[in-house]
Amino acid sequence: MKRDYGKKIITLITDFGTKAGYLGTLKGVILKINPEVELVDITHEVNPFDVWEGAWVLNSCYQFFPSGTIFLVVVDPGVGGPRKLLLIKSEDYYFVGPDNGVFSFVYEKEKILEMIHITNEKYFIGKPSSTFHGRDIFAPVAAYISLEVKMDEFGKTASECFKFKIPSPQISKNKIIGEILYVDSFGNLITNINQNLVDKIKRMNSLEIICKGKRTKKISRSYFEGKEKEILALVGSSGFLEISTNQDNAQRILRAKKGDKIRIEY
Amino acid sequence: MKRDYGKKIITLITDFGTKAGYLGTLKGVILKINPEVELVDITHEVNPFDVWEGAWVLNSCYQFFPSGTIFLVVVDPGVGGPRKLLLIKSEDYYFVGPDNGVFSFVYEKEKILEMIHITNEKYFIGKPSSTFHGRDIFAPVAAYISLEVKMDEFGKTASECFKFKIPSPQISKNKIIGEILYVDSFGNLITNINQNLVDKIKRMNSLEIICKGKRTKKISRSYFEGKEKEILALVGSSGFLEISTNQDNAQRILRAKKGDKIRIEY
Amino acid sequence: MKRDYGKKIITLITDFGTKAGYLGTLKGVILKINPEVELVDITHEVNPFDVWEGAWVLNSCYQFFPSGTIFLVVVDPGVGGPRKLLLIKSEDYYFVGPDNGVFSFVYEKEKILEMIHITNEKYFIGKPSSTFHGRDIFAPVAAYISLEVKMDEFGKTASECFKFKIPSPQISKNKIIGEILYVDSFGNLITNINQNLVDKIKRMNSLEIICKGKRTKKISRSYFEGKEKEILALVGSSGFLEISTNQDNAQRILRAKKGDKIRIEY
Repeated sequence: MKRDYGKKIITLITDFGTKAGYLGTLKGVILKINPEVELVDITHEVNPFDVWEGAWVLNSCYQFFPSGTIFLVVVDPGVGGPRKLLLIKSEDYYFVGPDNGVFSFVYEKEKILEMIHITNEKYFIGKPSSTFHGRDIFAPVAAYISLEVKMDEFGKTASECFKFKIPSPQISKNKIIGEILYVDSFGNLITNINQNLVDKIKRMNSLEIICKGKRTKKISRSYFEGKEKEILALVGSSGFLEISTNQDNAQRILRAKKGDKIRIEY
Repeated sequence: MKRDYGKKIITLITDFGTKAGYLGTLKGVILKINPEVELVDITHEVNPFDVWEGAWVLNSCYQFFPSGTIFLVVVDPGVGGPRKLLLIKSEDYYFVGPDNGVFSFVYEKEKILEMIHITNEKYFIGKPSSTFHGRDIFAPVAAYISLEVKMDEFGKTASECFKFKIPSPQISKNKIIGEILYVDSFGNLITNINQNLVDKIKRMNSLEIICKGKRTKKISRSYFEGKEKEILALVGSSGFLEISTNQDNAQRILRAKKGDKIRIEY
Repeated sequence: MKRDYGKKIITLITDFGTKAGYLGTLKGVILKINPEVELVDITHEVNPFDVWEGAWVLNSCYQFFPSGTIFLVVVDPGVGGPRKLLLIKSEDYYFVGPDNGVFSFVYEKEKILEMIHITNEKYFIGKPSSTFHGRDIFAPVAAYISLEVKMDEFGKTASECFKFKIPSPQISKNKIIGEILYVDSFGNLITNINQNLVDKIKRMNSLEIICKGKRTKKISRSYFEGKEKEILALVGSSGFLEISTNQDNAQRILRAKKGDKIRIEY
């Protein structure tokens, strides 16, 4: 850790929704072990069982938190099955959750110092159920990390973890074919075409960006530049090209979804 | 109280949704009285006016919180009517809210030490409205409890409180008829058939569980065991039999709702 | 400031929803600058780009918070355009957000001590994007305010800010025509007819309140007074006349929306 605050932060990312008592359970378990910890809700609205989306949300915000932050991620469709339980310490942060790909992006970007398969029942709540490891294992482990229990107390070193393959755009002489990786809450369609690639092509002649049959001829700087219902292409705050609109919902207008293609011709 | 932390926790369960300013109002009122208190959102998505659902959510998570936690529950369709205002102290916790059944389950399970009908206007905000006792009465009372104002300051001892009758399953020689008590955010259908009852029958010959015309012949251990779209029966984290699916939504597949019957034949 | 607590509170009102990582980003940015601050979620469900709604929600709850509270409001459809960036200090509170009308109501009600157009890049995160000033400017400024950086550090004094005109009801000899300003999460239709005006007419002969073709002849005291599906008129907790129902949703029953008229005849 570069720096460590007195106050420990545990952030929460889940697919629980906020309707049932599962979220309260998670928070109660943590606060019972360490009532001094600061709980920070990131989201509980990950699409149920959508590990990719959980990984994306974590990746889009974790780096803004202070050093020492503990990220608890419970998007765990394989609970009770053979998937392992993961605890990762990077140069700046801790990550706790299932070994199902939810840490794919942070694993690539962070300098990993230690990675553990959680097995020590001493840090579990009672005899773990086979339906709610968030409550029985992940939440207590996060809480004990906040109490500075040592990493190797929780289990043995893991050499590998499950990682999603992030699709790369296909680049040819006069064309790039990318795809939509994530649709945000404003309906912006975030693609796998990054800032560097956009910088290379943005001054090309006869540039055209096509998504779901709609076209635009320029890379905009802000949403504000678009006319009503007009499709915009810009590099958004995530650092990727996104298809968007000014004060409307591009997903709805284009009926687009994750995995849909985007084509850039020049 | 078995144990008491320096930091006081007030948890919030309401049917306010998170769209309007009502939730901010509740939080502001509490923090103005005790800025040192820790506010914990459990849910604000209780179905509007659904006291039963509020009682269920509270019951499903309160026991995981540390001793001394104050549970503020504002699901209050009878506001301005004759229903009373309740403050309960159990061996471990405090509960504040309307006397409309929202504390039915915790009342059964907790060792109750004191129960008060709140009447002392000294601890209200101004002259109470007849439309928002959450703001005017319940939130300030919870905040003053966190400041260790004594129970009998708030009003007179109450001998009784309103309680829902929880329907028991009908058990006969070769059949159990239960019903759905709650549908969670994953669409799992949680019934009134508890772990003990399931343990008694789970090794019976020709066991069959029927819900909304769909059948399964076994009690599973985890969601993970189900094939796609297959209906599962398992004892979930709540300790009750639930009808579920592996990574799908049983409520949607079965078009089920609270009150629907479930039949077990053996 | 009348009074100032040791612990600083920053409240959050946004139109981000809770699905994507934008909210986590905002919280991370603030906690990295001041890990001791208390973050309070008011709402992230302001209708996307609906500045009026953001202003309404802020107005409906800010006055319940303790002195010294910092209100961060990010409903910012004009991001990257010519709209200015505002920091306001009133006798009791701080407000940070875009100069697009979101502070219209508090500007009218509060005693304003200082108002600044934020320009000092020293308090921004890196080089600001043109798509996410919540992250790059507003969140860090709110965090530095919580660290007691002086107002004039952030930019130059602003003499004016953008303000919505709140429509006044039309009052004639035997009639008032008002309109719906806001629909809350219970479907209550909150109008621009305030308590004072209601007090003047509520004992009039042959009073009749008409909204979307439905009529009622009295001003009720509580929701509880209404029969099933019956339309009620009452002065709600906001201090304005609202059209409501007992345990149902007036918006859905009347198919009403913001801007729809309400007529009172007497």
